[in-house]
Amino acid sequence: MEPIMHHVWLRVFQRLQRASLFLRKSHSGCAEQATVLASIHSRRIRPTLPVSRLYQPLNLRDVGLQGEMTCKSQRLMQQAGLIHPSSPGCYYYLPAMVRSMEKLVRVIDQEMQAIGGQKLDMPSLCSANLWKTSERWDLMGNELFRLKDRHGVDYCLGPTHEEAVTTLVAHQATLSYRQLPLLLYQITRKFRDEPRPKFGLLRGREFYMKDMYSFDVSEEAAHQTYESVCQAYTRLFSRLGLCCIQVQADTGNIGGKLSHEFQLPADIGEDQLLVCGNCSFSANVETMSSDRTDCPQCKTGTLVATKGIEVGHTFYLGKRYSHVFNATFSSSQNKPSIAEMGCYGLGVTRILAAAIEMMSTEEGICWPGLLAPYQVCVLPPKIGSKVDKAAVLVEDLVHNLGETLPNLRGEVVLDDRTQMTIGKRLKDASKLGYPYVIVVGQHALEETPRFEVICQQMGETMFLSKDGLLDLLRRIETV
Amino acid sequence: MEPIMHHVWLRVFQRLQRASLFLRKSHSGCAEQATVLASIHSRRIRPTLPVSRLYQPLNLRDVGLQGEMTCKSQRLMQQAGLIHPSSPGCYYYLPAMVRSMEKLVRVIDQEMQAIGGQKLDMPSLCSANLWKTSERWDLMGNELFRLKDRHGVDYCLGPTHEEAVTTLVAHQATLSYRQLPLLLYQITRKFRDEPRPKFGLLRGREFYMKDMYSFDVSEEAAHQTYESVCQAYTRLFSRLGLCCIQVQADTGNIGGKLSHEFQLPADIGEDQLLVCGNCSFSANVETMSSDRTDCPQCKTGTLVATKGIEVGHTFYLGKRYSHVFNATFSSSQNKPSIAEMGCYGLGVTRILAAAIEMMSTEEGICWPGLLAPYQVCVLPPKIGSKVDKAAVLVEDLVHNLGETLPNLRGEVVLDDRTQMTIGKRLKDASKLGYPYVIVVGQHALEETPRFEVICQQMGETMFLSKDGLLDLLRRIETV
Repeated sequence: MEPIMHHVWLRVFQRLQRASLFLRKSHSGCAEQATVLASIHSRRIRPTLPVSRLYQPLNLRDVGLQGEMTCKSQRLMQQAGLIHPSSPGCYYYLPAMVRSMEKLVRVIDQEMQAIGGQKLDMPSLCSANLWKTSERWDLMGNELFRLKDRHGVDYCLGPTHEEAVTTLVAHQATLSYRQLPLLLYQITRKFRDEPRPKFGLLRGREFYMKDMYSFDVSEEAAHQTYESVCQAYTRLFSRLGLCCIQVQADTGNIGGKLSHEFQLPADIGEDQLLVCGNCSFSANVETMSSDRTDCPQCKTGTLVATKGIEVGHTFYLGKRYSHVFNATFSSSQNKPSIAEMGCYGLGVTRILAAAIEMMSTEEGICWPGLLAPYQVCVLPPKIGSKVDKAAVLVEDLVHNLGETLPNLRGEVVLDDRTQMTIGKRLKDASKLGYPYVIVVGQHALEETPRFEVICQQMGETMFLSKDGLLDLLRRIETV
Repeated sequence: MEPIMHHVWLRVFQRLQRASLFLRKSHSGCAEQATVLASIHSRRIRPTLPVSRLYQPLNLRDVGLQGEMTCKSQRLMQQAGLIHPSSPGCYYYLPAMVRSMEKLVRVIDQEMQAIGGQKLDMPSLCSANLWKTSERWDLMGNELFRLKDRHGVDYCLGPTHEEAVTTLVAHQATLSYRQLPLLLYQITRKFRDEPRPKFGLLRGREFYMKDMYSFDVSEEAAHQTYESVCQAYTRLFSRLGLCCIQVQADTGNIGGKLSHEFQLPADIGEDQLLVCGNCSFSANVETMSSDRTDCPQCKTGTLVATKGIEVGHTFYLGKRYSHVFNATFSSSQNKPSIAEMGCYGLGVTRILAAAIEMMSTEEGICWPGLLAPYQVCVLPPKIGSKVDKAAVLVEDLVHNLGETLPNLRGEVVLDDRTQMTIGKRLKDASKLGYPYVIVVGQHALEETPRFEVICQQMGETMFLSKDGLLDLLRRIETV
């Protein structure tokens, strides 16, 4: 900046409504500044959200559905205003869906980082040269979305990133065996030109996936890493309350020697599984003869066929990619060695749809508790009803929930559509699947006010005092 | 599921290592379940990260740079292992960068939601038909990345989403004037086939942008919404400590009647600005004659020319898109009316690069405090040095920081490369720009141990007891 302009800048600065760090630098010390900053934070508490302002169908019973409904989760998710169809296999994720997805992303982050995963973010535009080097440019056929830039250079939209991550690691000249295992992952949009997109988010063309890639010093170390990722996946699904089966799987066009799928059992599942009733064996039917009924592991059990939705996939890749892209590390003998790789996918949008498919009834969504868009919905009485007077308690209650329970910050909505009966609003609430619905009704007018709490997943209804209610809600796990 | 398979499923369930919600449903009540879930959470505390395990250059002084360095932020970001070049204008965002970006996204979420913004997520694959309807399919020329799917249908990769969001809102048949203003935003990857990508993340082809769209009942209401978004932008930049100027701007090919840019002053800025030294007037030179020196607003001030990096842009669109896509709401007279729109962009990756460009020296990065990848770096003494004994204090200190200061959870790294001198590691730390560096050196061996704290942004060094240190660090704002 030239000296002549300083007087101009001075005025420009003054026009900024709040003091910025830039200004504070000159007249406050380090400790003072930290205090000022911390105090700003308290302003940012999000108020309780009124249902009437949420971008979702105001009255779920009247929603018309566009397009062919090929499964329950697709229908429920469109009806509840979670998704809206765009092009075939492409969806808008609406606000409640984004909340659930962000929660799932946080759970995935926690579990991946707990085993040492480091999160990065790779471009969607992948150079054709990289994919030609791995020979997948031809191998992927029509599933790859391809495009040219203004200079005529070929790209594809990444459906997976083995090529991209391996070439990245190959460029780090200083990678040492001490830094391995190296686990890099991303949670980003992926693209796959499915011939027949269907089942809503279960088979789309644009979707979110978590893809992790591991780099190890030896085959043995790579197997240990592989096992630790499988355990993290099991913990993840367990935290979500989803019953997931790990089955042996085909390696497909990713290549490699060892592979498992994580399958959620569901009638509309597109994968045929064989599960042993006697031992731990289970497999995708692709890996064996489909009419086989004896278990190859325990020899005594009988294999039973079932269907599953694939929500995760793990591959031990060996040196398939690291060899081609020359991804080396410097060994303990200080010599360059080719890394052993694995790759590990989780379908983020697919997990949400599959969970809804598995857990919900035909009438309404039931979420894995941790992933519900909002944990609590408060229903005040209908205006003009006998219990109208109880409405005065609502404001105080909602304020208390938002302010005193840190786990519920931003998790409480108020169904302020008080021109509607409690019954009608309860029906909407059960369609959207709030884990806890609090009705402020006739019991709130008793000498010691009590609130009706409907706990969706347990199918229980309880009548609790305000303290009892706070005590219950304080223990809800949120992420 | 068929009854015959129940015995198989029973065994499958038993193989899941932890009890799932599915099982718990049958034998535990609602309150019990909440307790079980809450207790799981405490396991997930992330340990302090050792620098030797981070995916970043081990020794920053020796990093070779690929490609042409066109500006300071690009060079510093590549040297520090924040980004790595992929194709022209496309970058890998490496782990430290992802942390900063996630922080910036949280700040943006807070500010957008504070003014009623609701977050959604729209597909990157945008149907050509939508863009032909708005006539931008031709208007955008070579800047649009275009592709065909396997059926020969035309798509573009969304550089912005006026068409997509307006058609979404048009499909909501029940939108009432009571729900307006409606503010929908997303923070997603955008694509623009720049003829000459340069300046690292400042002019890329694939980048992250926050784009918000507003729908209002009238021109007057739309202007109020426009103003409230501009104020939110000013608050946002103020919280980041960035001096941002709001200037009147050209509307470009987005269309509309009123537009402002948010500009960060920088020598490498590609926008020419005229700023009045006397009143609040400032403008992009595109909106007026570039040799004008008298201020059109106050008439007495002199306009001074400067350069800026555009980090935000607001447009009042009127009915340009809502008319074409028939985005209506039902008015207070219960009649369908065309909504008044606005759109508001913020360059997410660009803000990070511009902040580094503005705040850093040639030698090292200085972050907006809130956005630093990690807040604190702890340096233990060199092995075999005179003060080697102080190392025993480090473990206790690091444990204390991580456990007792909730604001610093996951924010503390330990530079465990104790084969290097403190001086060399301090140099690395100043390149990466940790806001607080704690040296455990000779003062830690005094009767009352003291720690050396280097507060980067203030340029201050302090010697504090453990309690004094905790007291200082407790007040760091994190997001």
